[in-house]
Amino acid sequence: MTSLEELPLRPELRGRSPYGAPQPPATHRLNTNENPHPLPADLLADLGAALGRAALELNRYPDRDAVALRADLAAYLTRTSGETVTPQQVWAANGSNEVLQQVLQAFGGAGRTALGFTPSYSMHPILAAGTGTTWVDGHRRADFTIDTAAAAQQIRETAPDVVFVTSPNNPTGTAVALETIEQLYAATTGVLVVDEAYTEFARAGTPSALTLLPGRPRLIVSRTMSKAFGMAGLRLGYLAADPAVVDALQLVRLPYHLSSLTQAAARTALAHTDALLATVDAVKAQRDRIVAALPGMGLTSVPSDANFVLFGRFADAPAVWRALLERGVLVRDVGLPGWLRVTAGTAEETEAFLTALGEVARIQPGPEGD
Amino acid sequence: MTSLEELPLRPELRGRSPYGAPQPPATHRLNTNENPHPLPADLLADLGAALGRAALELNRYPDRDAVALRADLAAYLTRTSGETVTPQQVWAANGSNEVLQQVLQAFGGAGRTALGFTPSYSMHPILAAGTGTTWVDGHRRADFTIDTAAAAQQIRETAPDVVFVTSPNNPTGTAVALETIEQLYAATTGVLVVDEAYTEFARAGTPSALTLLPGRPRLIVSRTMSKAFGMAGLRLGYLAADPAVVDALQLVRLPYHLSSLTQAAARTALAHTDALLATVDAVKAQRDRIVAALPGMGLTSVPSDANFVLFGRFADAPAVWRALLERGVLVRDVGLPGWLRVTAGTAEETEAFLTALGEVARIQPGPEGD
Repeated sequence: MTSLEELPLRPELRGRSPYGAPQPPATHRLNTNENPHPLPADLLADLGAALGRAALELNRYPDRDAVALRADLAAYLTRTSGETVTPQQVWAANGSNEVLQQVLQAFGGAGRTALGFTPSYSMHPILAAGTGTTWVDGHRRADFTIDTAAAAQQIRETAPDVVFVTSPNNPTGTAVALETIEQLYAATTGVLVVDEAYTEFARAGTPSALTLLPGRPRLIVSRTMSKAFGMAGLRLGYLAADPAVVDALQLVRLPYHLSSLTQAAARTALAHTDALLATVDAVKAQRDRIVAALPGMGLTSVPSDANFVLFGRFADAPAVWRALLERGVLVRDVGLPGWLRVTAGTAEETEAFLTALGEVARIQPGPEGD
Repeated sequence: MTSLEELPLRPELRGRSPYGAPQPPATHRLNTNENPHPLPADLLADLGAALGRAALELNRYPDRDAVALRADLAAYLTRTSGETVTPQQVWAANGSNEVLQQVLQAFGGAGRTALGFTPSYSMHPILAAGTGTTWVDGHRRADFTIDTAAAAQQIRETAPDVVFVTSPNNPTGTAVALETIEQLYAATTGVLVVDEAYTEFARAGTPSALTLLPGRPRLIVSRTMSKAFGMAGLRLGYLAADPAVVDALQLVRLPYHLSSLTQAAARTALAHTDALLATVDAVKAQRDRIVAALPGMGLTSVPSDANFVLFGRFADAPAVWRALLERGVLVRDVGLPGWLRVTAGTAEETEAFLTALGEVARIQPGPEGD
């Protein structure tokens, strides 16, 4: 049997492990920020019909430019942001991971640098590594917020080619003020990616960075249908930016990267936007319920605009993770000492989580004097 | 309006155009080697049911490791090659383009080199560029065959990290002898990728490079469901190799890269393998009919083991391409002076192509003295 060490693997990959949340069996799976609400029956019926129609032509290559899907995505963004977004400003791929990988292939890559404010979406540095882009950790305050002046200063000093700002941030949950994004954009000569995967869950009065697109050709706003739309299994990520950015991505995209089934299913889901997003308020209510219950257990959380809560603090977060799992509740240890992340889903899931956490908190007290 | 030149694009991408065949309107589309036969009714019914079941769980992430699909692909390869291929030896992605991109991310990349024998699948150098891998053109004889001794010598001198051999080759059509692959493997210290996208169309007695896998941990055999399986719209490419190669690819693959719909549809198609591959003999008969008709028009072809024919020679191949298009027949100008490529499809398509070519050949004679 051959070992990985015997293959001519790139040296920087040696000793690494594949990315992905551990998936031990559990009754309540609150570790990957899925939307637990089943898809509406009307949508399922329409999906069946649309996929059946697409299957009739499966022997033909799909629309290489996904023109109709991009128009539907542009219409959704325009309707929800109040900012006019054209189809020429939209690009889509198999999950926002592929969208962001293409951004790095076009604007990052070997000899270039990407900067993101750690802790944030852990795929950003992995995508940088996969495209040969040097990664620089941006600084955050101890409360996980971005110090705008310090961040702009770090960007000016580092001169990265790609800057990532996740808003709402993952795994901490807090949205970033538009004023911060404006100032970081002004500080960089590279492209600035605002990863808005969780934006539909933001608290009232949190505008999207889409409203900053006019006059900012190096600004990119990425989105996904995996979270608020409840379509994680579909793998559909997308972005809005200047049409010139979309032209750039078409130089590095794999031809026919989006299958006919993906395009048909995404368009069908977008036609049911209102029904799908009807679950968002229910999820936000569960999130706020979790946040409200924590102080009673001697715990706290980071302000959340997402469908998850970063909660703590614990003297031994991995021990709490295991204790919750023993009670059938799987949450995510994101590697931040003292903190764990839990997905907000159904009322039943919240109930199970809070009950288990109540038991665990009694036996696993928080860190002393902190 | 911002132009691409104003963006901080990677310098080597400046001035490039997106990859893809021109798609002018035409009655007979014989330019992308699709399988024109409609999918069997039984398969369409099963696809509808399977996709409907998958849609019920679309709010959940797909199986990150595509375990069941890889087992089905391994069973297909085992049954058709006579070589035992285990699920641990198989990896799948959104089209063989993504499979090969992952191979280059793991074994190529910045500071590394890939070599392929030009003319061949034009995505290989594009994938190299997209991953920062330096590309080296390997030599072929004037008749497009590979001179094994010279190729092995070039590999030893160049020491590429990744070697591509397309068999049957695209756009020329001819399969490569296993003895050649064995000797090129022995000559390289990198990985050797045999791209077998068209292998199901090979003439009788042409074994797959799968039979060479035992004892060759740096050998990779890639396949697709786009051609013989007639599932170009599905975007499902895969490979077989040593399990350690699959371990390496899992370090660079995007998590959850294969959607639930893709996995379900591919598994359903594989359950109908015999019905799908029943079209292969019909396509091969049309290919052989095209080959047989060419000499009567004063034309020739390159020996084909694929579902297409490289035909010529013409004094002005682009003029012939346009003249065929004017007659409703779209073929591919692959940029080889004197040659064009035509997809073998249905009997009606062959009829239309040969009729149009007969007219054109009378007004566009071949090159003198050649």
